[in-house]
Amino acid sequence: MINTVSTSVSDHVSHQRLNDRITEMACLGATAQGGVNRQALSAEDAQAQILLTRWSTALGMMVSRDPIGNLFLRLEGADPSLSPVMTGSHMDTQPTGGRYDGIYGVMASLEAVQALQDAGFKPKRAIEVVAWVNEEGSRFAPSLMGSGVHAGARSLTEALALRDTAGVSVQEALQQIEPLLAHIPKRSLSSPAHCYVEAHIEQGPILEREGLSIGVVTGIQGKHTYRVTVIGDAAHAGTAPHRERKDALLAATAMVQSLSRTFFDEQDITRFTVGRFSVAPNAPSVVPNEVVFSIDLRHPNAEKLEQLSNQVSILCQDLAAPCSVHIERLYTSAPIEFSEPMQKIIAAAALQLNLPQRPILSAAGHDAGLMHRVCPTGMLFIPSIGGVTHNEAEFSRPEDLTSGARVLANVLAHLAGH
Amino acid sequence: MINTVSTSVSDHVSHQRLNDRITEMACLGATAQGGVNRQALSAEDAQAQILLTRWSTALGMMVSRDPIGNLFLRLEGADPSLSPVMTGSHMDTQPTGGRYDGIYGVMASLEAVQALQDAGFKPKRAIEVVAWVNEEGSRFAPSLMGSGVHAGARSLTEALALRDTAGVSVQEALQQIEPLLAHIPKRSLSSPAHCYVEAHIEQGPILEREGLSIGVVTGIQGKHTYRVTVIGDAAHAGTAPHRERKDALLAATAMVQSLSRTFFDEQDITRFTVGRFSVAPNAPSVVPNEVVFSIDLRHPNAEKLEQLSNQVSILCQDLAAPCSVHIERLYTSAPIEFSEPMQKIIAAAALQLNLPQRPILSAAGHDAGLMHRVCPTGMLFIPSIGGVTHNEAEFSRPEDLTSGARVLANVLAHLAGH
Repeated sequence: MINTVSTSVSDHVSHQRLNDRITEMACLGATAQGGVNRQALSAEDAQAQILLTRWSTALGMMVSRDPIGNLFLRLEGADPSLSPVMTGSHMDTQPTGGRYDGIYGVMASLEAVQALQDAGFKPKRAIEVVAWVNEEGSRFAPSLMGSGVHAGARSLTEALALRDTAGVSVQEALQQIEPLLAHIPKRSLSSPAHCYVEAHIEQGPILEREGLSIGVVTGIQGKHTYRVTVIGDAAHAGTAPHRERKDALLAATAMVQSLSRTFFDEQDITRFTVGRFSVAPNAPSVVPNEVVFSIDLRHPNAEKLEQLSNQVSILCQDLAAPCSVHIERLYTSAPIEFSEPMQKIIAAAALQLNLPQRPILSAAGHDAGLMHRVCPTGMLFIPSIGGVTHNEAEFSRPEDLTSGARVLANVLAHLAGH
Repeated sequence: MINTVSTSVSDHVSHQRLNDRITEMACLGATAQGGVNRQALSAEDAQAQILLTRWSTALGMMVSRDPIGNLFLRLEGADPSLSPVMTGSHMDTQPTGGRYDGIYGVMASLEAVQALQDAGFKPKRAIEVVAWVNEEGSRFAPSLMGSGVHAGARSLTEALALRDTAGVSVQEALQQIEPLLAHIPKRSLSSPAHCYVEAHIEQGPILEREGLSIGVVTGIQGKHTYRVTVIGDAAHAGTAPHRERKDALLAATAMVQSLSRTFFDEQDITRFTVGRFSVAPNAPSVVPNEVVFSIDLRHPNAEKLEQLSNQVSILCQDLAAPCSVHIERLYTSAPIEFSEPMQKIIAAAALQLNLPQRPILSAAGHDAGLMHRVCPTGMLFIPSIGGVTHNEAEFSRPEDLTSGARVLANVLAHLAGH
């Protein structure tokens, strides 16, 4: 399925260059513990975009930004009238994030394009490397913002109005970094793509445990997220009798415990996480009057996910008294299955490079899940040591990073044609 | 017991002036909901000190500040060699605090001194009105800082090193407001006092329910506070299997629920509150790696309080796995009983003014609890409507505010002599 011209491209992937660039990117938002904190549309994110622009401009790529802040690097094809092959990932991280989640896919795509050029490969279709904005949803909830707007899953207006916990909107954040990025030409939203392929670290332990280099991603488990607001009444910790209190923290902690028990799953397939939990006024001698907490609920089976999700509201309502509770579903993504032809192309590329591989389901959400709505989409994973991720200790072996880029280079060559 | 000269002093308490001043003070840190947020050593606190200084200087009082930031307003006595009668309270509030907690005692003391002057009463002993710094412990935990340092219960060095959640130390905060208060002379720590009396809102429902004007405070229930730190490990909400997670939030919420069940008390005497609960990294799709929460535990019986307190560590340790937990006891105050002679003087003053009264135990901690260690100390309460406090809806009736100041004026006249 992969022709011979395409397979030679991977020989031009530079192990040194790829790993050096990943290391250089990790300095932008570097944390004391060796991780990265690069929030979407922050100064560090802008610096990363500037660096990426510099590297790709040197390769003769055309750089542009769309209205939501996605960055596109286009290698023109022999026939500019054809829709481009798209590839990429995101550059933002969790607050205590690692050096690979997201940025690896962007760096592997750039390396793959450079390998194509070094191989003298002239693609028929343009190849566009994209850095999606605010994939993590850490600064602006919910996640997958840039790819969501691009794919038409969310309106631009709605996304621009999202605010971080300091009250800064996406629009304001874009304006704040605009002076740094004013040299990059603007483009309109949502140009059509021929197909999309994304390389990413696995963020789970399977590939490492099984001694494999490449995961051909079959799909993404479904995810529902919620914001739960518990309203009580502030009172004095010394004087207020318990029977007269409306303690928002007691109600909220009871909800978290009950949800955790209900969603317990012997087979450990269901994923239930309360990651954000904010208390007001958060003072030691005041009974809390408000708690806002997040729920992140995932399952690979659509029906089961709906079943679990339906219990969130019931359980929270049951445990609210004497407080009141307000439950909002923020985000719903049903489980998805990636294009079979794309899976086959990625598997064939790994096979021809003699890299051990397996099909794998993604437990995490990815921008590819949004692109799946608008064009044939595929993903490849490389191993994450210990499955550690969203953590400063996140690590992937340099040789695996390179293997992923080699597979990606051949896949892009095949998809773009020559 | 109260002589006739003393009883006439209360006639000079001005209802209008007292209530106007309380209203004016409530503007400094006023919240949108009609409450007050005036954190210790903030700009608003400094403005309150400046206003208080202006009012008392106009009465010929000498103003001074000690090294921890307590503010003293001295009305000189006929015999300056005698130790002063002290009276006052605090001016800081909880973040969503009310218009009366603390500031009422300072305003009532100032009004009482002015009544003495208007009555032509020349005290034998000096009267010192004091505004204690950081009583609430809301900005700098633990609470009762200024009176604690004054009474020798805590070292000055230790108190100056306390930091707020933004990392600002007490010493730095004092330096920040120093330019605003530089005109106020400095004094040394901890001059001896003849006695101390403090007026305060009840912060409980008893006086209102029983239709009484004055509570003669018999003592303060004991209080232990803790800081509990739960350490887990950050992980990805989608990929990390539950059996491999170390979820600090799940462990901490289990602790809060278990403590709440264990400390449940049919008679509703035990007070157990988790007011602060802070999660890191506090991102929706990251398993929390750290939770820090506060425990505020109170009981009027010393033995029972120790018994309850001993369970904190056991319960938290039991529920920590697979996380680890670190438990620090921050503050311990045994239940106390105020001086009987002081109680009698306050009760007699209320009786002579025909104000309905009762003995009452304080459920809240007060600066008077610290002064109790160094001199005969008493407190009087006025009603809090609905017992609502540490809440923007806190309210006390103007006529009750005035009644408290009238009792205080007579008590001060009696204690200072003439």
